[in-house]
Amino acid sequence: MVEIVQLEKIKSILKNNDVISVIEEGFIAYSDNRVIVPPVGEMLFNKTNGECHIKYGYIKDDNYYVIKIASGFYDNPKLYGLPSFNGLNLVFDQRNGELKAILLDEGYLTNIRTAAAGAVVAKYLAPKQVKKIGILGTGAQGKLQVEYLKSITSCKKIVVWGLSQEEVNEYKKNLEKKGYSVETTLNLEDIPTACNLIVTCTPSKKPLLKKEWIKPGTHITAMGSDTAEKQELDSEILANADIVVVDSISQSKSRGEVYKAITSGIISEDIVIELGKMISNKQYHRQNDQQITIADLTGVAVQDIQISKIICENMD
Amino acid sequence: MVEIVQLEKIKSILKNNDVISVIEEGFIAYSDNRVIVPPVGEMLFNKTNGECHIKYGYIKDDNYYVIKIASGFYDNPKLYGLPSFNGLNLVFDQRNGELKAILLDEGYLTNIRTAAAGAVVAKYLAPKQVKKIGILGTGAQGKLQVEYLKSITSCKKIVVWGLSQEEVNEYKKNLEKKGYSVETTLNLEDIPTACNLIVTCTPSKKPLLKKEWIKPGTHITAMGSDTAEKQELDSEILANADIVVVDSISQSKSRGEVYKAITSGIISEDIVIELGKMISNKQYHRQNDQQITIADLTGVAVQDIQISKIICENMD
Repeated sequence: MVEIVQLEKIKSILKNNDVISVIEEGFIAYSDNRVIVPPVGEMLFNKTNGECHIKYGYIKDDNYYVIKIASGFYDNPKLYGLPSFNGLNLVFDQRNGELKAILLDEGYLTNIRTAAAGAVVAKYLAPKQVKKIGILGTGAQGKLQVEYLKSITSCKKIVVWGLSQEEVNEYKKNLEKKGYSVETTLNLEDIPTACNLIVTCTPSKKPLLKKEWIKPGTHITAMGSDTAEKQELDSEILANADIVVVDSISQSKSRGEVYKAITSGIISEDIVIELGKMISNKQYHRQNDQQITIADLTGVAVQDIQISKIICENMD
Repeated sequence: MVEIVQLEKIKSILKNNDVISVIEEGFIAYSDNRVIVPPVGEMLFNKTNGECHIKYGYIKDDNYYVIKIASGFYDNPKLYGLPSFNGLNLVFDQRNGELKAILLDEGYLTNIRTAAAGAVVAKYLAPKQVKKIGILGTGAQGKLQVEYLKSITSCKKIVVWGLSQEEVNEYKKNLEKKGYSVETTLNLEDIPTACNLIVTCTPSKKPLLKKEWIKPGTHITAMGSDTAEKQELDSEILANADIVVVDSISQSKSRGEVYKAITSGIISEDIVIELGKMISNKQYHRQNDQQITIADLTGVAVQDIQISKIICENMD
C-alpha cells in the first residue's frame, strides 16, 4: 500500500535521523559508480515562465528507486501568492516496481539534501577551530546550511552578507532565535576577514569573493552556482586552493565554479577531486590549519535518492 | 490541495465520461503540433528484470501537464504474485506547477487510452456494416477494444483468435457475460475470412495476418506492435491498403507495422497519414465498402495527457 507523506511528517522524520551520514554514503556510492542517474527530463512553459524537471535514479542493489519532480514557476509569488518552487519525490521498490511512498515535500527535501551536503563537506574540510561561520546569501539555504553545520562544529558565531540591510536583519533575527550570534554586513570582504568556514548560497552570476581576501586555513563551500552562468567565486581562488572538491566531476564539465575555472583556463581538471572519493581517501581531507580548501556543489540525484530513502524507511 | 485518486474512483469517472471524444481531440492537437512531448525517460533494472518509463508532456495553452510513470517487472507474477505492469499519472496545473492529482491507476489508464484510440480509428475507418469483429489476442486489451467499440458499431459478434483453446475459452466466457456472442479459433485465417473489422492485440514478433487473406472492405487496427521488433501484419497488407494511418509519424520511424513496412522497402512513407490529420480531413476517412484500411497505433503521450485530464476535471 502506497504511503502519502505530508511535509509535516517529513520534517519530523528528518529531525530524528542522521541525514548527513546517509547523504555521505550516497556521495561515496556515486563516486564508486554504483549510482544510475539517467539524463534529467525537462518541460518548459514559456507562456507562464515555468519549468518542470524530472530527476530519477537509483543505487545499484539497493531497495529503492526514486523519481523527483521539481517545478519552478517564477511568476507564482506575483500572480498567485504561491511559492516559485515546488516538488515531490516518488519512491519505488527496486525489486518489483511497487510505489512505496509519495513524498509531498514541496521542495523541502531538496533544501535539506543540499544543506546536508554542505555538512558532509565541512566534516572533512572545515578547519578544526572554526572562528566564525560566514554565510553569503540570506535565503532558505543560507539558514539551513548553518543548522546542518551544528553537528560538525560547535561554533555559533555567524557573519552574514546579503544584498540589503533588510535581508540581513531578517536573517539575523531568524538565526538568533535558534541560539546563534549573528553579525551582519553588506561588505563582502568582511566575510573572509572574519570567517574561516564560508558557505556561499547566492544565485550570483558574477564572482563575489576575491582571491586576495581568502586567508590560509579557510574552507569555502560554494553552494549557489549550479548552472553554466552562475558564479560566486573568483576562479583564482580555486587556482590558489590546496584542495578543490566537486560533488560530480561530470556535472562540473557544464556548470558551477569548477566549470568556470576550467573553461577559463585558470585550473586544470586534474586537480579536481570528486566528493565521494575525497571522503574515502584521508589524503584529501584537510591536513592542517593552513590549507585553503574549496568545495563546489551543483547537486546530484543521489542526494534525492538518499534523503527519500530516509523518509521511506522511517514512515511508521 | 492535491487529490489522491484510487483505481475504483478512476473507473467510475471513466464510465461517466466520453473518453473517445477526448482522446480524439488529443490526436488532433498532436497532429496540429500543439503537443509538447519530450523524450521518454527510462530506467532499467537488469537484476530484477524490470524497467520503468517516464512519459510526460502537455498540450500548449491547456490547463494541465501530465507525468506518467509506468513500470514492467516481468518476474513479478512468478516471484511475488504481483502484476508485471504498474503505473500512475501525475497531473499538474500548467499555470503554476501545482500538483492537482495523483492518479493511482496501476496502469489502467494506459489500457483505456489504448482501447479508446482503437475506437477513434474505427469511427472513421471501420466499414459501415460491421459483419463480425475479429480480435487477435485474448488479453486485457483484446477485451477492452471490444468494449470501447460499442459506441462505434452495434455489432455484437466477435471472433477471437488466441494461442490456446484455454485462452480463447476464457475470453469467450468473459465477453459473453457482457452480452457478446463469441466464436473462438486457433486458426488465424478464420479471422479475416469472417470479420471486416479486425483489431490485433498481441505481442507477436512475426506477422500473423497474410495479405491474401484480407478482403476488400476490411479495416485492421494493429495495436500490438509498439517496438522495433514486434509485428502483427505482413507488410504487404499495408502496401495493398487504400489508407494507412499511424498515430504518430515520428514514432513510426522507429517502431510498429509502418516502421517494418518502410524499412523493408515495401511501402513509401509518403502514403502514411497521421491519425489527427486523418480525423480532420474527410478525404482520408473510409469512402466506400471496398477500401482496405489499416491503422498502426504505437501509443502517444497525448493520450495519457487527455485521459488524465478527464479524471482531473471530474474528481468532485
